[in-house]
Amino acid sequence: MFKKVLIANRGEIALRVARTCRELGIATVAVHSTVDRDSAVVRFADEAVQIGPAAARRTYLNAGAIVEAALQTGADAIHPGYGFLSEDPDIADICAEHGITFVGPGPEVMAQLGDKATARALMASAGLPVLPGSPRTLDSLDGATEVADRIGYPLIIKAAAGGGGRGMTVVRARRDFRAAYRSTRAAAQAAFGDGRVYVERYLEQARHIEVQVLCDNHGNAIYLGERDCSIQRRHQKLVEETPAVALPPGLAGQMGEASVAGCRAVGFTGAGTFEFLVDGDGSFYLMEINCRIQVEHPVTEMITGIDIVREQLRVAAGGRLPFTQADVAPRGAAIECRVITEHPERGFLPTPGLLTEFEPPGGPFVRVDTHGRAGYRVTPDYDSLLAKVVTWGADRDEAIARMDRALGEFRVAGPGVHTTIDFLRRVLANPEFRTGTHTTGTLDTMLAG
Amino acid sequence: MFKKVLIANRGEIALRVARTCRELGIATVAVHSTVDRDSAVVRFADEAVQIGPAAARRTYLNAGAIVEAALQTGADAIHPGYGFLSEDPDIADICAEHGITFVGPGPEVMAQLGDKATARALMASAGLPVLPGSPRTLDSLDGATEVADRIGYPLIIKAAAGGGGRGMTVVRARRDFRAAYRSTRAAAQAAFGDGRVYVERYLEQARHIEVQVLCDNHGNAIYLGERDCSIQRRHQKLVEETPAVALPPGLAGQMGEASVAGCRAVGFTGAGTFEFLVDGDGSFYLMEINCRIQVEHPVTEMITGIDIVREQLRVAAGGRLPFTQADVAPRGAAIECRVITEHPERGFLPTPGLLTEFEPPGGPFVRVDTHGRAGYRVTPDYDSLLAKVVTWGADRDEAIARMDRALGEFRVAGPGVHTTIDFLRRVLANPEFRTGTHTTGTLDTMLAG
Repeated sequence: MFKKVLIANRGEIALRVARTCRELGIATVAVHSTVDRDSAVVRFADEAVQIGPAAARRTYLNAGAIVEAALQTGADAIHPGYGFLSEDPDIADICAEHGITFVGPGPEVMAQLGDKATARALMASAGLPVLPGSPRTLDSLDGATEVADRIGYPLIIKAAAGGGGRGMTVVRARRDFRAAYRSTRAAAQAAFGDGRVYVERYLEQARHIEVQVLCDNHGNAIYLGERDCSIQRRHQKLVEETPAVALPPGLAGQMGEASVAGCRAVGFTGAGTFEFLVDGDGSFYLMEINCRIQVEHPVTEMITGIDIVREQLRVAAGGRLPFTQADVAPRGAAIECRVITEHPERGFLPTPGLLTEFEPPGGPFVRVDTHGRAGYRVTPDYDSLLAKVVTWGADRDEAIARMDRALGEFRVAGPGVHTTIDFLRRVLANPEFRTGTHTTGTLDTMLAG
Repeated sequence: MFKKVLIANRGEIALRVARTCRELGIATVAVHSTVDRDSAVVRFADEAVQIGPAAARRTYLNAGAIVEAALQTGADAIHPGYGFLSEDPDIADICAEHGITFVGPGPEVMAQLGDKATARALMASAGLPVLPGSPRTLDSLDGATEVADRIGYPLIIKAAAGGGGRGMTVVRARRDFRAAYRSTRAAAQAAFGDGRVYVERYLEQARHIEVQVLCDNHGNAIYLGERDCSIQRRHQKLVEETPAVALPPGLAGQMGEASVAGCRAVGFTGAGTFEFLVDGDGSFYLMEINCRIQVEHPVTEMITGIDIVREQLRVAAGGRLPFTQADVAPRGAAIECRVITEHPERGFLPTPGLLTEFEPPGGPFVRVDTHGRAGYRVTPDYDSLLAKVVTWGADRDEAIARMDRALGEFRVAGPGVHTTIDFLRRVLANPEFRTGTHTTGTLDTMLAG
């Protein structure tokens, strides 16, 4: 196992990774920007290195500075968390050159799967169902329009380098295509430094169902069940749960098997997520594959009892998964709610500021992953995820009742700071959500209503 | 199910009960003393009634005031938590007279089991092994000395009305018996208003193993596994875990079956705990039976997924247990550490005071039950339990590593306030505890060394 791991991230996920390292007896190095100098992971870690000012491109996106900090501190591995450099094959390459293990599936697999158009084609040839779409990225407007006409409307234009719900535009009519193509390319270029896009048929009233996979370097590839992440605002997940409610019998298992087949096709190792859309007929279509720990991984941990970060580290260190598919025995149901510092009544305007009060919920079957505390200042420099509240129940109704209780006792206050706590409780009460008939459109309908 | 439950307790357990009520859609009434007027449960509950000044006998031990508050607020049940009136048949009787359900096994069973000498005799005739001891309470010094001689030394003098590790004196030599008899009677009279005592052989180097039982009024009696509570200081538990490590194969099951037989013998209903001593040969002896939720119940909840307070309420409302013995499928291992505001290096001197900092641990597989928060003033008026940290692991080593991590990130500070957090981490590192060879004597040896 590793002796020292550098955590190339911030916020709740950096702390979450550091916690598992500590439990495994691995020393931890936090890297941080100036504004994060007193953050939870900096307080928790054994060492901390300040690598730059607030701007992410100078710090959490700065592969050179991060690898330099790893070399300085003698870290033998880098865990990237999610977002930032977690799916960047370049940093994985640089690490390999310096004899540092980058926790992930390796630069080649990352490059293949990170380009969503390539991943789509690869997985289609491995037998996974994909939505009708362009076979590769579309580099001319005329060519793109022609492909779009063939696919039909509504369709979605996606950035090849996108992820995390960003870099996507839904187009409902032919007359809007050209403008949408141009704006998505421009946005992708600005956000990811890569303007390439592709198009896919867009499913309305679908469910976002994803499969957690874990694979080692010894031929073991397993899935840890599915998650329903259909409660999204503009493709940003807000509520996630497992198991997925109201799927046709056997479907989740089929999606799991398909995902494992996809892993084997590309030699995937580590933890990953296969994201699918499931339509009203129970047909499923692969959207993308993430090569990293997922924000919503705790719901899977709650029902399986498996620490996914521990398994990532074990696999990255060359170890074997200590369980087989048959050993995975999910119990009950789990839900995650994302508490973000945004104002739902003002178009989810970010509300950074000083937290003068911060009392997370506790008690039976409640987990909170957060970097917040009283006295912490939420900065406008990064995303606004403040806490993940996760509850477990013997069944879905119990998990929901517990979540409502837990959110109800969560106290966060500070001048100008607003969170999604009350909004999330309204989502839990939404009739479509309660009956399990929700789709990716439910939240936007609720917000429009 | 009940519409409104009055919680006749304070501290973490009052909040814990209120949380489950909320999840079940039951309204809650907190009763409190003046010093507890801003406590966690008072903030959390739907209603709160101040019933008296700080002194427990005027408030949490004041059955009249509590039942009066229940009548005033229209509560249809009273949950007593642990300690205080939780095992008092008188309040159960008063409740019955007023048509209020007292959550417990009923006044008659409570009276039988609450008198520890009677319970001992009853259970012996139901076939449960008990240590050699006096068949009933000993009301004369000469008679007591004679019984003591017959049993042999070391022996333990116990208050018939005792509980929670109080009202007990170990006597190692005949010459100390008379003084110990007198002082234990006097202490029992002062503490419980009942000076009756009995004697029992005292086992050194034993383990304290207890069985959690759940019984309904429809003939279902099951056990939810065992807990090892051998880490005690002067009979006060500090660390509890499940399953019990290094018991001979099959023994825990035998103890479970014996406990269920004991329940059936007396018509026990609700949640209870059968406390045993297990000697080095794997023989087990019943010590006492508790008719209430136990401080350490969360470890059992963590491995079984069963909310024991929910089941207490369900049974008290006349419902059936929704599972059978065969449905109980424990997973992994769980440990609880009691964070108390006492100073281990100063003979566990209580250190009440204002908490200026309070950041409980979080993250994967960690549960915290606490009424603490920054700004909370720990009062000297009641016991000093501030928080229970509970961790789960796929196995005992993982649960211990996680506990050490969780305790390490728990920040509690305030002028003059000291806690057991660091001490608990030393207990976790104790070689006997780590190897699972600890007994009820381990902690006292560690403290003496």
